[in-house]
Amino acid sequence: MAATDRNRVFLLAERPTGTPTENCFELTERPMPTPGPGEALVRTLYLSVDPYMRGRMRDAESYAEPWAVGEPLKAGVVGEVVESNGANLDPGDVVTGDLQWADYATAAGPALTKIDPDSAPISTYLGVLGMPGTTAYFGVNEVARPRAGETFVVSGAAGAVGSVAGQIAKLNGAHVVGFAGSDEKIDFIENELGFDHGINYKGTDDYGAALARAAPDGVDAYYDNVGGPITDAVFGHLNVDARVAICGQISTYNATEVPTGPRKLGTLIQTRATVQGFLFSDFSERMDVATRQLASWVQSGDIGYRETITEGLENAPDAFMGLFEGENIGKQLVKVADGED
Amino acid sequence: MAATDRNRVFLLAERPTGTPTENCFELTERPMPTPGPGEALVRTLYLSVDPYMRGRMRDAESYAEPWAVGEPLKAGVVGEVVESNGANLDPGDVVTGDLQWADYATAAGPALTKIDPDSAPISTYLGVLGMPGTTAYFGVNEVARPRAGETFVVSGAAGAVGSVAGQIAKLNGAHVVGFAGSDEKIDFIENELGFDHGINYKGTDDYGAALARAAPDGVDAYYDNVGGPITDAVFGHLNVDARVAICGQISTYNATEVPTGPRKLGTLIQTRATVQGFLFSDFSERMDVATRQLASWVQSGDIGYRETITEGLENAPDAFMGLFEGENIGKQLVKVADGED
Repeated sequence: MAATDRNRVFLLAERPTGTPTENCFELTERPMPTPGPGEALVRTLYLSVDPYMRGRMRDAESYAEPWAVGEPLKAGVVGEVVESNGANLDPGDVVTGDLQWADYATAAGPALTKIDPDSAPISTYLGVLGMPGTTAYFGVNEVARPRAGETFVVSGAAGAVGSVAGQIAKLNGAHVVGFAGSDEKIDFIENELGFDHGINYKGTDDYGAALARAAPDGVDAYYDNVGGPITDAVFGHLNVDARVAICGQISTYNATEVPTGPRKLGTLIQTRATVQGFLFSDFSERMDVATRQLASWVQSGDIGYRETITEGLENAPDAFMGLFEGENIGKQLVKVADGED
Repeated sequence: MAATDRNRVFLLAERPTGTPTENCFELTERPMPTPGPGEALVRTLYLSVDPYMRGRMRDAESYAEPWAVGEPLKAGVVGEVVESNGANLDPGDVVTGDLQWADYATAAGPALTKIDPDSAPISTYLGVLGMPGTTAYFGVNEVARPRAGETFVVSGAAGAVGSVAGQIAKLNGAHVVGFAGSDEKIDFIENELGFDHGINYKGTDDYGAALARAAPDGVDAYYDNVGGPITDAVFGHLNVDARVAICGQISTYNATEVPTGPRKLGTLIQTRATVQGFLFSDFSERMDVATRQLASWVQSGDIGYRETITEGLENAPDAFMGLFEGENIGKQLVKVADGED
């Protein structure tokens, strides 16, 4: 049973115009939920904030269903089962699932995946072993497809997805270049993760020149999390038969007017490059394979990761908004409670 | 032997800034060329002007080598062999090849392809059976890949490439929509070629609304010859797993500053669409297959075509410049001489 009958839940208070502000989030107290038949009550330990959530704040059809104003926000959560009402789980089990931004939430048994807290830190199931890591795995191996000796470039390179993408490309034998937004991030990807070159895009006005130095043989594969001028620069350096994987476009998510930029489709004719968007969910049937491979790489030290952890459910909006300021290195998480409590 | 020793040759007089003007072309008289060992002397009958030539006028590396200022322009030509110096051809043979904008030119035997003037009108080897037709063939079948019941959209739909692309998509069983720039062109593609819908983009300000009416189920495959706002509109209507084949971007070729437009890469994530550029030459090893298939479709009446023929070598620059004004319906040719002379 829950140690308290207090349950804090974040609601979408209003839809943002442009950059989300704290006015968009309302923290309410609600009665402790009761699991219905086949459901479990889960206590949130870690909550994930991710850039794609900006799309869910919009009142527009997208791949992720829009959040309703006045309704609870949802997120990837790692939590502990408090009570199972025929959900095929036991109290104390650690699970992951798409739950509310809340201290406690209920979910149907099949919507929760049991994880082994002894095999890896439980927080990693929201990062390197979770949606961001597996997105990187499939985006690199199925869409960008870097080969040994090729040059692979990733934007948002110090983030949850980009940091894993670059390392997988490196394991494939590619020359790996990452764009990130601070010297600390460049140090992280170059010296901790083994990228060949990091470009601090906040330290230069000429992304193309920086890229020409870091990728003198041109770009064979590009993994894009960011869009905008960085992507424009990379398009200017694509090699023949290059592959571009569009994973995210965070630079455009808060735009209040349609963002504009140079028209680049002509580049694709000369290079016969392929640009392809993809979603994590496209690969859901093979997710286990990716998770197991990533877990093995993490265990062997072939893949490193970092987490930026914000403490307290009440600070989840700050953690989310910080994503758009590039405040996180690696996976941004919110720690809501300790598992051993 | 040539009936005259006068040979007119067009040179690139200067590189254009923006839209090419007549100042870019210089018609000179040169001595009749003499075929060297292994070469033939060819009398030009038809000369092809194509949008890609705008790229050759630029002093920049591209897939087609830039033309040199003061040097002869080159083009696809259908001509008659006047003299063979061991080129494995006979006087009177009709050949096609990449020759000078000239009344007469020489070329090595292997650079000339003999054609059968009885199987199809010789001019079609520069159009529906030539580079434009085979480009459409491979672009549709290998890149855009429309399936039966899908919606296929083509821009530049009344041009040499687009008109063939739409008809091949129709043969594949797709619902075919074409963008073109006059009521006469719409009449041509709808009533002569059997497109399901034509959109006269000069008759509407809202391409997206026109497309929503013509393609109510969204766009599964897009064959782009044009770029710019038409392509922006199509990107707004792509279905999940759509394929976009980038063949040309004529709307941008004469730009003096980098053309800008709305950033559309985010659309690709939601739709998991693939955008791919390609070149005619990528498929050179299978060109015979395409030419034979197209010839059979033309003979059976499954594929119709039209030619816009400008008379006289001296008018070749006008014919070329007219491409950017959309003056041609179907393939734009220059008739330089009659075959039977």
